[in-house]
Amino acid sequence: MRRTHSLFAFTLGLGLCAAATAATTTIPAAAVKTAAQLRDQALKDDTAWNFTRDLTTEIGPRLAAGPNDERARAWTVARFKALGFDKVWTEPVTYPKWVRRSEAGAIVAPFPQPLVPTALGYSAGTPDGGLTATVVQFESLDALKAADPATVKGKIVYIGYRMQRHKTGKDYGMGSAVRTAGPPIAAAKGAAAYLLRSAGTDANQRIAHTGVTGFSDPAKAIPAAALSNPDADQLERILAYGKPVSVHLDLDVGFDGEYTGANVIGEITGSKYPQQVVAIGGHLDSWDPGTGAIDDAAGVAIAAGAAHLIAQLPQRPARSIRVIAFANEEMGLWGGRAYAEQHAADVTDHVLGTESDFGAGAIWHMSASVKPEARGAIEQMAKVLEPVGVTYDPDRPGGGGSDLSQMHARGMAALSLGQDGTYYFDWHHTANDTLDKVDPKQLAQNVAVYAAFAYMAAQADGDFGSAPGAFANDGARD
Amino acid sequence: MRRTHSLFAFTLGLGLCAAATAATTTIPAAAVKTAAQLRDQALKDDTAWNFTRDLTTEIGPRLAAGPNDERARAWTVARFKALGFDKVWTEPVTYPKWVRRSEAGAIVAPFPQPLVPTALGYSAGTPDGGLTATVVQFESLDALKAADPATVKGKIVYIGYRMQRHKTGKDYGMGSAVRTAGPPIAAAKGAAAYLLRSAGTDANQRIAHTGVTGFSDPAKAIPAAALSNPDADQLERILAYGKPVSVHLDLDVGFDGEYTGANVIGEITGSKYPQQVVAIGGHLDSWDPGTGAIDDAAGVAIAAGAAHLIAQLPQRPARSIRVIAFANEEMGLWGGRAYAEQHAADVTDHVLGTESDFGAGAIWHMSASVKPEARGAIEQMAKVLEPVGVTYDPDRPGGGGSDLSQMHARGMAALSLGQDGTYYFDWHHTANDTLDKVDPKQLAQNVAVYAAFAYMAAQADGDFGSAPGAFANDGARD
Repeated sequence: MRRTHSLFAFTLGLGLCAAATAATTTIPAAAVKTAAQLRDQALKDDTAWNFTRDLTTEIGPRLAAGPNDERARAWTVARFKALGFDKVWTEPVTYPKWVRRSEAGAIVAPFPQPLVPTALGYSAGTPDGGLTATVVQFESLDALKAADPATVKGKIVYIGYRMQRHKTGKDYGMGSAVRTAGPPIAAAKGAAAYLLRSAGTDANQRIAHTGVTGFSDPAKAIPAAALSNPDADQLERILAYGKPVSVHLDLDVGFDGEYTGANVIGEITGSKYPQQVVAIGGHLDSWDPGTGAIDDAAGVAIAAGAAHLIAQLPQRPARSIRVIAFANEEMGLWGGRAYAEQHAADVTDHVLGTESDFGAGAIWHMSASVKPEARGAIEQMAKVLEPVGVTYDPDRPGGGGSDLSQMHARGMAALSLGQDGTYYFDWHHTANDTLDKVDPKQLAQNVAVYAAFAYMAAQADGDFGSAPGAFANDGARD
Repeated sequence: MRRTHSLFAFTLGLGLCAAATAATTTIPAAAVKTAAQLRDQALKDDTAWNFTRDLTTEIGPRLAAGPNDERARAWTVARFKALGFDKVWTEPVTYPKWVRRSEAGAIVAPFPQPLVPTALGYSAGTPDGGLTATVVQFESLDALKAADPATVKGKIVYIGYRMQRHKTGKDYGMGSAVRTAGPPIAAAKGAAAYLLRSAGTDANQRIAHTGVTGFSDPAKAIPAAALSNPDADQLERILAYGKPVSVHLDLDVGFDGEYTGANVIGEITGSKYPQQVVAIGGHLDSWDPGTGAIDDAAGVAIAAGAAHLIAQLPQRPARSIRVIAFANEEMGLWGGRAYAEQHAADVTDHVLGTESDFGAGAIWHMSASVKPEARGAIEQMAKVLEPVGVTYDPDRPGGGGSDLSQMHARGMAALSLGQDGTYYFDWHHTANDTLDKVDPKQLAQNVAVYAAFAYMAAQADGDFGSAPGAFANDGARD
């Protein structure tokens, strides 16, 4: 729906007011009541749990373009249909294929012993037989940026930034910068390879965290890998002896052409404004070492569980609820960017959106990027969500989550529904991202929040300000 | 020292009483006082911490007969000398060499996905290209024992016994039985391979626990591996669908001839009865995935730290303090058995002994297998140890620990110094057995206990009942 369309929405019944630009958006009392019922019902509903369990069990790892990519899409189409969605379809997403075949590493001197590395996404492979080079340590990304290339050339750059646990996961800002920005900087200075202490908060697990690098040009990529935290500790202890430390890396990974996957989309079709959508979702791909339970089967499951609950109501909501299982979020929001391109003309019809991609911890805060006249409606939503532990911060923008940040950047009104990320980075991007890390109760709390907000957005009298170019300067970082 | 010798010990001075068979053994008041000082001093001493840190850093993994075996022995000889031990020597230990080159596994059907296995010690390798077979699950070791071989033949046997955390580590009794006894039973019934849920208590780590099997005859060995707990959960979820489940295993492991390593022994030589020894120690070998910090660098370090402290006293104790770093405990007490054979004639001279091989947690209980006339001396020791949290149980025997159980079985009086094992089996036999799992304060408490008891034993007026054949029926299980 375009903005001119929504001006006349009231003529179509269901008690929705006209949403003139300056008019106040409100949630009708009946919708607030139903939303509260959905919220309470969700806390006892196991649809999202079953979704997460079955996707991670029956498909397992879902590396974009990997051996399970097509199976995962077929599975999701089938499950969306089984959940009673009115429409289920896919939209193609094309991206570079990157593969991981094997990876190994060792300290060669002065104290020979194996390391536990994991190659980073878009890492180059090492030459046949691997590479051996001396390690040069930098205290920070800034120190690497400032380094004379002569000190880096031919060496393995190592940065040991250590993330700490926070509810907000705030250390991931620097952790992911060291992982993403560091390798291209090292490559530009002539480094042979790049190692980092895992961008993760598990201090004691011998499991390294993968994740994408910033190698947008395969021709300029060098081998890049993360070390588990205990391995990073060990490497740093050995570097502290002050002797030359040489490391061997054998990474059989790399780019392998192009692949076309798809976003999988399921929709509960709106009864009155079917073309207007409340967009929710998660991403279907995962990193390969784990089964992608918290990142991000849970996210897709939360959205699907919420839409399923809404579909159980006696009648469809006024607007559509769209659940998007994005393709290849992990290697650079490929699904989100493709969706935003394909739906560039539909920004106004995406009345409100947010993606779940921060694990399965309970949602504890909420913020929004909406037009001023819709603040009251957001406050109505916040009141419904407060009993399940959500605090609304009216002074922060809402970014819409990872993939949907791309629609928000084009003008879609968006929420941020912040989950408790205290332990998220213990497991994120590792073999440990498995079903046992999902707490069914906290997962259900997420569904409660998504079902309630999505229903209210779908029933709102008025819009939230979505329009091409809106919110361009809201500072949302999601 | 033989028993007849000790009868005349009093003639040699230093205030030691004659230890006639019926005479009461006591700790002289001066020795009790010095032991209390050693105990307090140990709490502030970092010798054991430095030993553990340096061994695990400079050598790393120490698989028996593996690439670091010889280096680890040379390192230990050098460190014992640096610690000021009066004598340092090695005694050869010969055993079958077993090697781990690589290991991989996957569920092939119905839901293809990788598994995280680790081959068990003395496992056979799989044929070139691996093996694929259907999985047959048994609820328990007893169920496997009772099984008709026709249900097992050609299949991969799986048992999912789940250990729980206990301070005593008591579930390892069944956990290690499933790992040790299970594979030969499965092999005898014609199984293609054997899988178990790791004998470990980390519910959520994608790291499998290795450990030895009971394959004493390489010709009868089959491939045998452990799965991490999340992998075992996943396999069980998939088995619960009721469809045939096939698994692929590719284990490049196996027997590879014979190897001669050595026990490394350091001694603080007794001033009056040098041939009488208080035997303490740990084992130098470790499993290969980790650096063997808790299993058992810490054990050797505790004993070495205790002996070092005693060596700092103005004069040597009456008896010798012998620190033994045993070879190849992990694959069947090879070092302990060799030591017991080589010292079969010295049982009586091993006046009291105990080995540290249960991690680095604080010691919280103590029991002893000694002659009745030495109970009072043990109670004197217990009083000195009580302030650091050790409770003495006079009704339980003391087994001497893993390798020294072999000397105890031949008649050496022995203590059990039980460590807090609550988290030991989270890390035991895995890549996670690294330095960060050692708490320096708890490690120092262990040294306090070892230094105090060993000094008192070395200064005791009288013996503890060591004699060939003594304690044959004490029921000690260490």
